Amino acid sequence: MIKYKFIDGGVTSPLGFSAQGVCAGIKPSNKTKRDLALIYCEKPCAAAAVYTKNLVKSSTITVTKKHLQNGVAQAVIVNSGNANTCNADGIEIAQRMCEIAAETLGVKAEDVIVASTGVIGQPLPIEPVIKGAAMMKGKLSKDGGTNAAEAIMTTDTVKKEMAMQVELGGKTVTIGGIAKGSGMIHINMGTMLSFVTTDAAVSAEMLEEALREAVEDSYNMVSVDGDTSTNDTLAIMASGLAGNNEIREKNEDYRVFVGALTEAFKSLAKKLAADGEGATKLLICSVDGAKTKKDAVMVSKSIICSSLFKAAMYGADANWGRVLCAIGYSGADVDVSKVKVEFESPKGEILVCENGAGVEFSEEKAKEILLEKEITVAVSLNDGEGKAEAYGCDLTYDYVKINGDYRT
Amino acid sequence: MIKYKFIDGGVTSPLGFSAQGVCAGIKPSNKTKRDLALIYCEKPCAAAAVYTKNLVKSSTITVTKKHLQNGVAQAVIVNSGNANTCNADGIEIAQRMCEIAAETLGVKAEDVIVASTGVIGQPLPIEPVIKGAAMMKGKLSKDGGTNAAEAIMTTDTVKKEMAMQVELGGKTVTIGGIAKGSGMIHINMGTMLSFVTTDAAVSAEMLEEALREAVEDSYNMVSVDGDTSTNDTLAIMASGLAGNNEIREKNEDYRVFVGALTEAFKSLAKKLAADGEGATKLLICSVDGAKTKKDAVMVSKSIICSSLFKAAMYGADANWGRVLCAIGYSGADVDVSKVKVEFESPKGEILVCENGAGVEFSEEKAKEILLEKEITVAVSLNDGEGKAEAYGCDLTYDYVKINGDYRT
Repeated sequence: MIKYKFIDGGVTSPLGFSAQGVCAGIKPSNKTKRDLALIYCEKPCAAAAVYTKNLVKSSTITVTKKHLQNGVAQAVIVNSGNANTCNADGIEIAQRMCEIAAETLGVKAEDVIVASTGVIGQPLPIEPVIKGAAMMKGKLSKDGGTNAAEAIMTTDTVKKEMAMQVELGGKTVTIGGIAKGSGMIHINMGTMLSFVTTDAAVSAEMLEEALREAVEDSYNMVSVDGDTSTNDTLAIMASGLAGNNEIREKNEDYRVFVGALTEAFKSLAKKLAADGEGATKLLICSVDGAKTKKDAVMVSKSIICSSLFKAAMYGADANWGRVLCAIGYSGADVDVSKVKVEFESPKGEILVCENGAGVEFSEEKAKEILLEKEITVAVSLNDGEGKAEAYGCDLTYDYVKINGDYRT
Repeated sequence: MIKYKFIDGGVTSPLGFSAQGVCAGIKPSNKTKRDLALIYCEKPCAAAAVYTKNLVKSSTITVTKKHLQNGVAQAVIVNSGNANTCNADGIEIAQRMCEIAAETLGVKAEDVIVASTGVIGQPLPIEPVIKGAAMMKGKLSKDGGTNAAEAIMTTDTVKKEMAMQVELGGKTVTIGGIAKGSGMIHINMGTMLSFVTTDAAVSAEMLEEALREAVEDSYNMVSVDGDTSTNDTLAIMASGLAGNNEIREKNEDYRVFVGALTEAFKSLAKKLAADGEGATKLLICSVDGAKTKKDAVMVSKSIICSSLFKAAMYGADANWGRVLCAIGYSGADVDVSKVKVEFESPKGEILVCENGAGVEFSEEKAKEILLEKEITVAVSLNDGEGKAEAYGCDLTYDYVKINGDYRT
């Protein structure tokens, strides 16, 4: 068991970090929302990132990858309102954004991570970025982390921040982060935008390893709508200011750090899922008893991605047949005749299917359970030791509304 | 070029076939809609079927597979309102249905194809089936085909029928069929319920080959919501009464037959897509210039399945960035910098993306094109000779409404 505790705070909670977010006027239709953020560390950090596996990639990813080749970063610049994807001048604009951040903060342009989120295929004008950066000059602070969390939002309805503390070799280490999600969210490597900071001392190489491990059971288990974005970027920066012995190999400290990071990511991942476009509920699908972990992952993702299951949860309808259906087409090696399904929420739990067939249950009780804001569908495959948990949300009228005319 | 023509008619158009459909009272919530159908041929037919690949399967599939082992069938019994899936007594009930059809029509129970569609996991009472079959005794006719088409509908809003004629070795051969679709529709072998008849003379072995070939470019290219049903069954019966030389090998007649069958299936597949749950539009995604046919299939399916693309089409929003996004995560081998995208409808066509980047276009003209009921998104990958066409529908409020509380 790794001992960690969540604390109030966000991306600026670890030692050395400050941030800010302003309204730079990037969003053509909304000139009142924050849309440009800077995150800064007082010293160069070990840094790593994972990105979308979509072949169509934002130019920001090309530039960030180049800048992180040496495993060092000191700042992040990120805008919402425009994805800087499929634009002829995309690379140039992304590089200009790094230069602007570098000038504003007095760091090297090569040590800047850049990211964008918003509409695909519309040129991103650089003037608002220049203006917004000027507004933030000298204004980055610990308190500014919340403004940064706001500035990366698109159709998100709530800002997503997280901070936790964990002990590493006798020193208290802090991990903080912000994330944005909403639509075009689907489990495949990076997923969405998230910037995580820590004051732990970790080598760049171990930081990248830790990032890749922690992302598997957290961000990679989230799906809102099955669409893998072109801009997904999850970046982490470690300042080392906590004073722990630097993690340079996969020792006990490394395992503790990965464990804490996984929980930190899960916390942000659940926030993303709960605030999926149009969502009224967080759905958690926990699977145990699978032949292998891989089978458990396939089953949990298949259920959490099923439009029919998601719509049933919106309607608080205990339609377990759709759960069975999604198990059946998941591609996992499953013995259908052993499957057990329960629905759980703060209002209690109810068994709806055992040995692959329906059992009698109270529709009234089921409705009461499913009307809650956080629902777990617990699936036992009774066929091995494999476990997984996936995160998603219900499918609602508002998802259609938001996406029926997103650009206008 | 295969010369075929569509004619008015349906499953009873080929020589030898008659059918009927009645309201047997199987649907608990609706006692006025037809829900039980019989299809009959005056002589035993060569027969074949393909089924869902979902591991969770209706008991009707188990029974039908057994009955088709010898490649012979003479009748079909099918109900809507209850899927007969995940029920402890499912096999027994499916067998009873075949016996009831056999007694009613004077055929062998082993020569009956059985299928069900509706809610999963609720026991199917046999009494309404007995009652419904008695109502149909002696009442099967050519005209009854339309009633049969109605009786297999669930949330379908229109009945789906098709008939075509094609010349085989100097003889006119007729192919007819009915289908039901709506939700839980996703490209993976069988897909939905469809019963196709023909008076062509074809051996059972060649009929199965032809069925498997024809399904690939038709039914297997349809997706409404990404959920592969537990009950998908596509069955075909060939009476041989057209008097053509029996097709026993892959000769010229076989190629003509497969070509006509593919077009017949496509016609029903498009009807399924256009009437997907909540749909207001038929979406066709045609892809050319792919490195291989497989790449073209992956790209077209990925686009047609994208919730974001589907919602944009509902909103008549020319959001081509979502098309690029879906191409990028399709898994196909694509050079993004060569991609061209156009939207087409009866109102004209409009180029929105070339060489992987946006081009200027009239939003007004795009809106006019996208407000039509049948939209084609034409994607040229400019990287080879592979082609494919996939069929789907838009994602609307009504999909959510229909599925938020389907069981009540």
